[in-house]
Amino acid sequence: MDRIIELDTTIISAASAVGKKEHEGPLGQYFDIHDERDKYGEKSWEKAESTMQRAAMNTAILKSGLRESQIEAIFAGDLMNQCTGSAYGMLGYGMPYIGLYGACSTAAESIMLASIMTTHGIFKYTAAVTSSHFCSAERQYRTPVEYGSQRAPTAQWTVTGAGAFITGKGGKIRVTAALPGIMRENGIKDAGNMGAAMAPAAAETIERYVALRGGKVDDVDLIVTGDLGFEGSDILRELLGKDKKEISDRLSDCGMLIYDRQKQDVHSGGSGCGCSAVVLASYLMPKLESGELKKIVLIGTGALMSPMTIQQGEGIPAVAHLIELSGQQE
Amino acid sequence: MDRIIELDTTIISAASAVGKKEHEGPLGQYFDIHDERDKYGEKSWEKAESTMQRAAMNTAILKSGLRESQIEAIFAGDLMNQCTGSAYGMLGYGMPYIGLYGACSTAAESIMLASIMTTHGIFKYTAAVTSSHFCSAERQYRTPVEYGSQRAPTAQWTVTGAGAFITGKGGKIRVTAALPGIMRENGIKDAGNMGAAMAPAAAETIERYVALRGGKVDDVDLIVTGDLGFEGSDILRELLGKDKKEISDRLSDCGMLIYDRQKQDVHSGGSGCGCSAVVLASYLMPKLESGELKKIVLIGTGALMSPMTIQQGEGIPAVAHLIELSGQQE
Repeated sequence: MDRIIELDTTIISAASAVGKKEHEGPLGQYFDIHDERDKYGEKSWEKAESTMQRAAMNTAILKSGLRESQIEAIFAGDLMNQCTGSAYGMLGYGMPYIGLYGACSTAAESIMLASIMTTHGIFKYTAAVTSSHFCSAERQYRTPVEYGSQRAPTAQWTVTGAGAFITGKGGKIRVTAALPGIMRENGIKDAGNMGAAMAPAAAETIERYVALRGGKVDDVDLIVTGDLGFEGSDILRELLGKDKKEISDRLSDCGMLIYDRQKQDVHSGGSGCGCSAVVLASYLMPKLESGELKKIVLIGTGALMSPMTIQQGEGIPAVAHLIELSGQQE
Repeated sequence: MDRIIELDTTIISAASAVGKKEHEGPLGQYFDIHDERDKYGEKSWEKAESTMQRAAMNTAILKSGLRESQIEAIFAGDLMNQCTGSAYGMLGYGMPYIGLYGACSTAAESIMLASIMTTHGIFKYTAAVTSSHFCSAERQYRTPVEYGSQRAPTAQWTVTGAGAFITGKGGKIRVTAALPGIMRENGIKDAGNMGAAMAPAAAETIERYVALRGGKVDDVDLIVTGDLGFEGSDILRELLGKDKKEISDRLSDCGMLIYDRQKQDVHSGGSGCGCSAVVLASYLMPKLESGELKKIVLIGTGALMSPMTIQQGEGIPAVAHLIELSGQQE
């Protein structure tokens, strides 16, 4: 039976750490921390990503007012092979560590699981952490940045960013529900067009959510995907159909919000685990806190291929996990 | 505050699918399915791993007596980059999919999360699925099998195997508790000695468990790690100390059980996500069901490095998640 997971917990605090390009973008002023050289003082891009995760985590803990030792578990993941961005990033914290892999859906996936835990008292406070780094992702998934390869118009730009969220009782942002996604693969084999690969999974999760909420989404101010980019968002609108104006009018996408498409040469927009994490942590959550937005749903979208499966000619499976958030105002 | 997660659910059914070497080993007769050519009818090792996962999943569903549509979520992970063994393996099932990465701890991690979900009614029935394949792992982590490289005496042999577990009410194996592990990295940088890298994390989880259970583990018949192998198990005994006879007497390891060390040329024993999964599904669970074992704890141990972090000179972080299982007899 399809069902929404009803939740009753809060995000106590959230923090973001980003790179130069993200800081220069339209949301640049909102992020907590940035590094002009994208290296966070480290000698490799991989270590930079882990250090950036710790910067976000430490800032989120600081903002929460909790002691580090009060946080009882970390749910974390990233894009690197064997999720080493998170393993090495979170190694120093003496907390139980639960590793996830959901590609760009990891922010939503980790907040969903962390929120289930604190709703049901399994842990009192948990951290949900995720990251991506343009340079570590480029050389792992595509070619090293130095190679200067040409990008397709449909390609998305991997966000250099890490987001951390502390869940538990007492915060100002309520997590009221979650809906884990079903994997879909609709024949897209082009890793330079992940928006197209992920749009069907996003459409299905949104349609399931609307159906499970009795067809009414009038009270949802924003249905924000993370991250379909411009290409994928166009496809999502087509898939949802023109008659569903009450949904289409509310759509937005973290990958479209984070960069200036014209000035920043990002082609189809942002992507990467860090994209929806930092947009949610530093741009959307404050709007929920101030009451500018009352209720939103974030649909984290992940493309679950690897360079090897693409080389082997496979299609790209995608998944889209949804979380429902609102300000404390009932 | 450190705490055990008390659980009240069951494993309704479990199934295993393995390769030729595992079938020829001392536990060979217990596994549900095997393939003499390790290929499961596929043209690549990667597709073979996914197909083997489906074989285990389908068998577990069949044994459970449930309809496929009654299973409300899949928790799955494997060793392949971007966890594609699970993504492509589980793609065909129309169920919410929650991807995990815990290296060889994934069997315990997935059963822990699946059991939390069914204990708290978040899902009625869930599947926990994991796999590894010797040939896909060799060429990803080390060198292609055809290269014929020499293995270190401390190296473990990646099990070709997939395990699937259906959790929910009504089964004969109770899941009574879980304890997620804290990552530890104690300076081991040799990917040919993962047992040494994982032993400290296993020791800590066991010590936390014993402490949280008030120092008494008399009622636990078996404390089984998965998978430290021979080398790592020796180190675990040293770390636990000679005075802790009540623990040492009960220790075993899935990586030591699955192969015949002398006859099968496996050096330090088995490893890989599939190892503890298939040993639990087909060897340990039947012993719990028959009453030969009354209560066991499985400690899934994962080494969270990647080939890149090893090349970059980093130590190997490890994590050890524990699940507590018993037969229905109180």
